[in-house]
Amino acid sequence: MEIITGGVTAAEGFLAACTAAGIKYQNRVDMAMVYSKVPCKCAGTFTSNIVKAAPVLWDKNIVEKSAFAQAVVVNAGIANACTGAEGLSYCADTAKAAGECLGIPADAVFVASTGVIGKQLPIERIVAGTKAMAPQLAATTEAGTAASKAIMTTDTENKEIAVTFTVGGKKATLGGMSKGSGMIHPNMCTMLAFLTTDLAICKELLQEALLEDIKDTYNMISVDGDTSTNDTVLLFANGLAGNAEITEKNADYEEFKRALHTVNEFLAKRMAADGEGATKLFEVKVIHAADKAQAVTIAKSVACSSLVKAMVYGNDANWGRVLCAMGYSGAQFNPEAVDLYIESEVGKLQLAANGLAADYSEELATKIFSAREVTAVADLKMGDASATAWGCDLTYDYVKINADYRS
Amino acid sequence: MEIITGGVTAAEGFLAACTAAGIKYQNRVDMAMVYSKVPCKCAGTFTSNIVKAAPVLWDKNIVEKSAFAQAVVVNAGIANACTGAEGLSYCADTAKAAGECLGIPADAVFVASTGVIGKQLPIERIVAGTKAMAPQLAATTEAGTAASKAIMTTDTENKEIAVTFTVGGKKATLGGMSKGSGMIHPNMCTMLAFLTTDLAICKELLQEALLEDIKDTYNMISVDGDTSTNDTVLLFANGLAGNAEITEKNADYEEFKRALHTVNEFLAKRMAADGEGATKLFEVKVIHAADKAQAVTIAKSVACSSLVKAMVYGNDANWGRVLCAMGYSGAQFNPEAVDLYIESEVGKLQLAANGLAADYSEELATKIFSAREVTAVADLKMGDASATAWGCDLTYDYVKINADYRS
Repeated sequence: MEIITGGVTAAEGFLAACTAAGIKYQNRVDMAMVYSKVPCKCAGTFTSNIVKAAPVLWDKNIVEKSAFAQAVVVNAGIANACTGAEGLSYCADTAKAAGECLGIPADAVFVASTGVIGKQLPIERIVAGTKAMAPQLAATTEAGTAASKAIMTTDTENKEIAVTFTVGGKKATLGGMSKGSGMIHPNMCTMLAFLTTDLAICKELLQEALLEDIKDTYNMISVDGDTSTNDTVLLFANGLAGNAEITEKNADYEEFKRALHTVNEFLAKRMAADGEGATKLFEVKVIHAADKAQAVTIAKSVACSSLVKAMVYGNDANWGRVLCAMGYSGAQFNPEAVDLYIESEVGKLQLAANGLAADYSEELATKIFSAREVTAVADLKMGDASATAWGCDLTYDYVKINADYRS
Repeated sequence: MEIITGGVTAAEGFLAACTAAGIKYQNRVDMAMVYSKVPCKCAGTFTSNIVKAAPVLWDKNIVEKSAFAQAVVVNAGIANACTGAEGLSYCADTAKAAGECLGIPADAVFVASTGVIGKQLPIERIVAGTKAMAPQLAATTEAGTAASKAIMTTDTENKEIAVTFTVGGKKATLGGMSKGSGMIHPNMCTMLAFLTTDLAICKELLQEALLEDIKDTYNMISVDGDTSTNDTVLLFANGLAGNAEITEKNADYEEFKRALHTVNEFLAKRMAADGEGATKLFEVKVIHAADKAQAVTIAKSVACSSLVKAMVYGNDANWGRVLCAMGYSGAQFNPEAVDLYIESEVGKLQLAANGLAADYSEELATKIFSAREVTAVADLKMGDASATAWGCDLTYDYVKINADYRS
């Protein structure tokens, strides 16, 4: 497997376009379209919030009922959530407009939205934007990058990656783009991710691979603990790599899963690092846990703690807050056995041994914390399971962005 | 029942004192002592965090095993949490010193601490402070107020209240003080509350009344979602009111419960309103829920949402965030039935009807939000249950306080 330049247009047969539809933002692109020249097997995973945006309902239906799909139309600025029957009808209108332009059925077109909740989409502008994008679809790297920029809201950087891997002697490619900065606590966030591959694989295994991988990637990130109404990951596979279709869990399937994990972990970590107002990526590793569920619960509790996040912003090794967040996670463990470490490119330092303060240099701790990516490690000394969660620091700018997001 | 001036010294027979022991802060009082002239029945409730501070372990043991207790010694600045056997021995040393000065057994002395986790107490200064306080004990209102100030950490205001009520023809008094500003998400927080009454009541009913009432008061507040290692509520009843001891759930018991609820709700709301960096108290009422558990889960989810709290700070009626936080709470309900309102001293306004935007004035919404105390009401239209949670806004100052709390 090799990481290459590119994103959603890296795999054979995928094209992208974007446009400035004027949905909320002025003077920037705010709609994107991704399209495959041939029909795709599709897998999808969606928010667990019981308040589900209209596009989530539309897309779930396609994933569950359609054998194939071929395109997705995405807008930034308005989430089309809490919009009732009217909002759902706009999903159908958008898919219909795209289908007509592209010569495919409306039920082969996914839609996705991100932005303010509770406002209706300006459907005329959405339809006009859709019609404007179709003739501009291109397979270039630039078209993919432009699409990834069009779906940003409070994101400060676009997020895309592509990898190549070999299955059955054939080179296959997997690329993806995502957005997400606030309201990020995916349980299966508003995060959106769109993945494209030219691999040939049956729909069941495509969906299974996606569902399994999000547990260790998107579902392990948190910016603010708020699980969005719109979280969506869609994975398109068009088969143009020419490999024999993967229909069983063989070595090819495992190679695909490694590629998928690389892409998902990259996109998930970029979202955490680009969390609203964040100045750094904060990684939490729980090691030697009794089982995976315990490790996941503890890692997420630390990554989500406001006090820990503020401490990371302040470069302050106030490690008692870490142990405190572990303790209220709901998982059972022995606090008096826990060793705590911090590490970054600057070095590694033990802060606590067997639940008590280790003899460490505060000055070195502050230096380690000052890096752009910092990891806290908690060793439970119970077993062989581990988990990693990703978050970010809590800053003045998080408050600023969210005290006035709509204005 | 009548609210009167006073706090922990309002009830007959209770005395208080404080001193500047130099534990962490300079030039301020940082230790308090409360003492009853006669032995008390005592009830207590403590953090559910599995990382429990040493004083929590000490106090739980007294509540569970001793028929009587008579004093509590409290320090601010260091939490005595994650301090192992050494930390626990300092609880015993403190209680022993107090017991010697007061002429009571060490196991009749509670201890409580709040502050930084993971540091050992300067036990010589704690013992010296304890010895300095004992001769200064006084039953005056001023002594109670001074004690309530001594236990503050990042609190900006002291918190105390007292009420009188009548049982069996006798006037009884209940007073209390609390502290709490950060690491506040009590599941039975570092919140500490100390309640004193001269009521005569058996220990079992005293404990039952306390456990029941904290569910609707301290356990319904959150500043930052972090459940402390030190949360403690202690309730002393010395019997000096002269009523016939309450030993069954009669009218006198109900009158005491009303008094207890008034005191606990006041102290709990003051902690939420004085949350670290907070500019206002944010109340969340869930009404017409199917059952109490559902109402509690939803109310707490909204009160704890970082996005909702930032919105409250920004005076921005971005109600979709409220519905979103309800939706990921884990409770089941129909989002398309929900009505949302906001209210304050300025007025009341419907923001959403049946899950969709209502036609409201953004200008009026901003005015309502600008009050010092704001309530959000969510009507689920399912049944007769309701719950109220209290939180505060998320502000620049929360980040500032917690990015450098130790320095």
